[in-house]
Amino acid sequence: MSIQPVGSRRHRVVVIGSGFGGLFATQALKRADVDVVLIARTSHHLFQPLLYQVATGILSVGDIAPATRMVLRKQKNAQVLLGDVETIDIDAQAVTSRFLDRVTVTDYDSLIVAAGAGQSYFGNDQFAEFAPGMKTIDDALELRGRILGAFEQAELSDDHDERARLLTFVVVGAGPTGVELAGQIAELSRRTLKGAFRHIDPTEARVVLLDGAPEVLPVYGGKLSRKARGTLERLGVEIQLGTMVTGVDADGLTVKDKDGTERRIDSQCKVWSAGVAASPLGKQLAAQSGAGTDRAGRVEVQPDLTLPGHPNVFVVGDMMSLDNLPGLAQVAMQGGKYAAHQIIAGLDGQDPGQRKPFKYFDKGSMATISRFSAVAKVGKLEISGFIGWVAWLFIHLLYLVGFSSKLSTLLSWTQAFLSTGRNEMAATEQQVFARIAIDRLREHTEAAEGGTGAAREAG
Amino acid sequence: MSIQPVGSRRHRVVVIGSGFGGLFATQALKRADVDVVLIARTSHHLFQPLLYQVATGILSVGDIAPATRMVLRKQKNAQVLLGDVETIDIDAQAVTSRFLDRVTVTDYDSLIVAAGAGQSYFGNDQFAEFAPGMKTIDDALELRGRILGAFEQAELSDDHDERARLLTFVVVGAGPTGVELAGQIAELSRRTLKGAFRHIDPTEARVVLLDGAPEVLPVYGGKLSRKARGTLERLGVEIQLGTMVTGVDADGLTVKDKDGTERRIDSQCKVWSAGVAASPLGKQLAAQSGAGTDRAGRVEVQPDLTLPGHPNVFVVGDMMSLDNLPGLAQVAMQGGKYAAHQIIAGLDGQDPGQRKPFKYFDKGSMATISRFSAVAKVGKLEISGFIGWVAWLFIHLLYLVGFSSKLSTLLSWTQAFLSTGRNEMAATEQQVFARIAIDRLREHTEAAEGGTGAAREAG
Repeated sequence: MSIQPVGSRRHRVVVIGSGFGGLFATQALKRADVDVVLIARTSHHLFQPLLYQVATGILSVGDIAPATRMVLRKQKNAQVLLGDVETIDIDAQAVTSRFLDRVTVTDYDSLIVAAGAGQSYFGNDQFAEFAPGMKTIDDALELRGRILGAFEQAELSDDHDERARLLTFVVVGAGPTGVELAGQIAELSRRTLKGAFRHIDPTEARVVLLDGAPEVLPVYGGKLSRKARGTLERLGVEIQLGTMVTGVDADGLTVKDKDGTERRIDSQCKVWSAGVAASPLGKQLAAQSGAGTDRAGRVEVQPDLTLPGHPNVFVVGDMMSLDNLPGLAQVAMQGGKYAAHQIIAGLDGQDPGQRKPFKYFDKGSMATISRFSAVAKVGKLEISGFIGWVAWLFIHLLYLVGFSSKLSTLLSWTQAFLSTGRNEMAATEQQVFARIAIDRLREHTEAAEGGTGAAREAG
Repeated sequence: MSIQPVGSRRHRVVVIGSGFGGLFATQALKRADVDVVLIARTSHHLFQPLLYQVATGILSVGDIAPATRMVLRKQKNAQVLLGDVETIDIDAQAVTSRFLDRVTVTDYDSLIVAAGAGQSYFGNDQFAEFAPGMKTIDDALELRGRILGAFEQAELSDDHDERARLLTFVVVGAGPTGVELAGQIAELSRRTLKGAFRHIDPTEARVVLLDGAPEVLPVYGGKLSRKARGTLERLGVEIQLGTMVTGVDADGLTVKDKDGTERRIDSQCKVWSAGVAASPLGKQLAAQSGAGTDRAGRVEVQPDLTLPGHPNVFVVGDMMSLDNLPGLAQVAMQGGKYAAHQIIAGLDGQDPGQRKPFKYFDKGSMATISRFSAVAKVGKLEISGFIGWVAWLFIHLLYLVGFSSKLSTLLSWTQAFLSTGRNEMAATEQQVFARIAIDRLREHTEAAEGGTGAAREAG
């Protein structure tokens, strides 16, 4: 199937990705005289900053993942095409996508690539099966199953060492996602699950947060990092900094401390939130346009977020490298809107040479550590504690898509933060059983084959 | 691991199953001088009557599936054991369960078996992969992916016949679940998805409801069945009665009408809600006790819900056969409570011979056809339309477990019934892609091997 102009040909904008960059770009084109084709791999937009709350039983999938098609239902000039983009041909101005066995070629006049980033294991992809990342709804639901499944297994075990291994949760990476996840696993075990078991005491679970960096939330640094660390430690999170992961297997990790000593941490449930790698589409764009890519595979764009020599191809969000801008929702939203506005200006006769460079307006960034406590940085202003947390609540509600999701999220938060319950504690059978079973099976197979292979070093 | 008495030996009640029967039995033992061990295959209780709303994007998993452990957290005399019961030995008074590779033997003084029922394909289990049932959370999420995935595929197709096949949804079985599901798929396509696609008109989707019986909701019969049928037809559901399914494959079904003519219905998305089969544990109990089983594998129990010669072994809910009682939540709840009360009476010195027989108090039954319309039967009283629907709303909210779930469900209903949105429209990648992909793959393999094998007849 090939999507071709129908009737009078309007300027066609193809947008790749339904994250913050792609969605905001599409919505910014609502009143423009263009046809927008949004091609995305998932049928939902994802409010990624709250994914860790799906993983820890606070929010439902629907709260943070509205169907993109429903969000754009009333935007008549936009259509959503489900598919994985396989190739972009910037000379032919065409995008080839695939959904199952169905291949679609879509021509474009302007292109906005916002395909985001996935987890990076710094060359140690074999870690992924034992320490999954947290980038998609599937990841979050699987992690929920792994976390709750570990408690269930511990309840059934009467071996001291095995219990200790099952009740040790390791989060690799002390950036915002890692910090928020570690904080929530700690609250889950200390508050939510308190008294729910009869043979184990879930409040004794170890939650370990590891990072190679010398402080947590290094992007904030200084006072805020120290505050965050203090709050985490009061919650009972063990923080191990200056520590590199050298190996991950079904039963734990091997790590190397700053002084070079290697040691082992026995743990069944591990999560990886240590690094990101831009969508592989970045490499395609770079190769075709001569743009460079950075270490994370992000495309080095021109000041107007386009590829060199291709003023009609924009790259925004986590895929783009410009002025060391961080991988934040705000950068993607503003980039998407900027690209849309340049396209509209072009239709009005503006020459690409006249474009004003993209300028990121820093509205600040924040991370919640636990209920009632967050750290936030807005320009030079640093906020922490309860005021930071209220600001966090307010801003996240503001940006959630859809009135009903906002209400439903508020309700879930009221429950999770004021009572000791959580609404979304069901792990589907598939998630609890199948995945743990797969790990087990693999573990047994490997034991039979004698060893798990050489562990390589990771940062 | 073997669960043995700790300290002073109290009377131990083992409950198998965390559905209505098992949960209500456990809760009814709250103040009794017993230890309760609830063994269940899933970590959640499931409010099965609303499962179809998870499948059609109205409710979240958490709304209808609270973690059993959390529900029972404060009941100090109860513990939850996750595991699949493999054998029950009623002479040794022991239950063997397995969670992954961990086997647990639990001794009991009294046993309440409430392991429920699964889907039955009447000997045609090969239908299951193409027309999954709707008994578990996993089933509901998979079905959600299949329904939404069919619309997505249709949007991408430019072949007329293929589109028609993708936009034909067939529900086999016109009992309450089938009727409610067909009604909701119709509302989803006609209201929720209206205007959400650009190449197809989802309101033109065919929703076919098939049954071998001569009327819908045969359990009600007469006026209510006719009312339900009228409402469904106004919603656009095609009703085909007196129709038997003779074959199911990836692309559709073959059916045989009352007059003996065979015909084919092309349809990608099929759901099976035509029959139930009691848990296979029923056969074990019957074989050991000499009790009979009915066609659905349900155990024919004594008037006090016990096995012949085993007054300490109760069978309740969908697994039990007594006085032709239907497989309703109320029957299971009341059976569970009854069993608990007999056990308590026994501790107080009552002889099993003195037990009053179980008497089901019919509080009525109901089914929603669409928003604002339900049918209900309470004794001789028959209610339909809006009043029935309000009664339905009220009663379902009443029985949902947990205050927060009630609020959250009410919020989701407000949205689904008063606006055109639904909060839980996200299909996880696993569900949309993996499962459809598996079907595709199988279809191709079979095509290569030349045919899908002989289709057998089903009722």
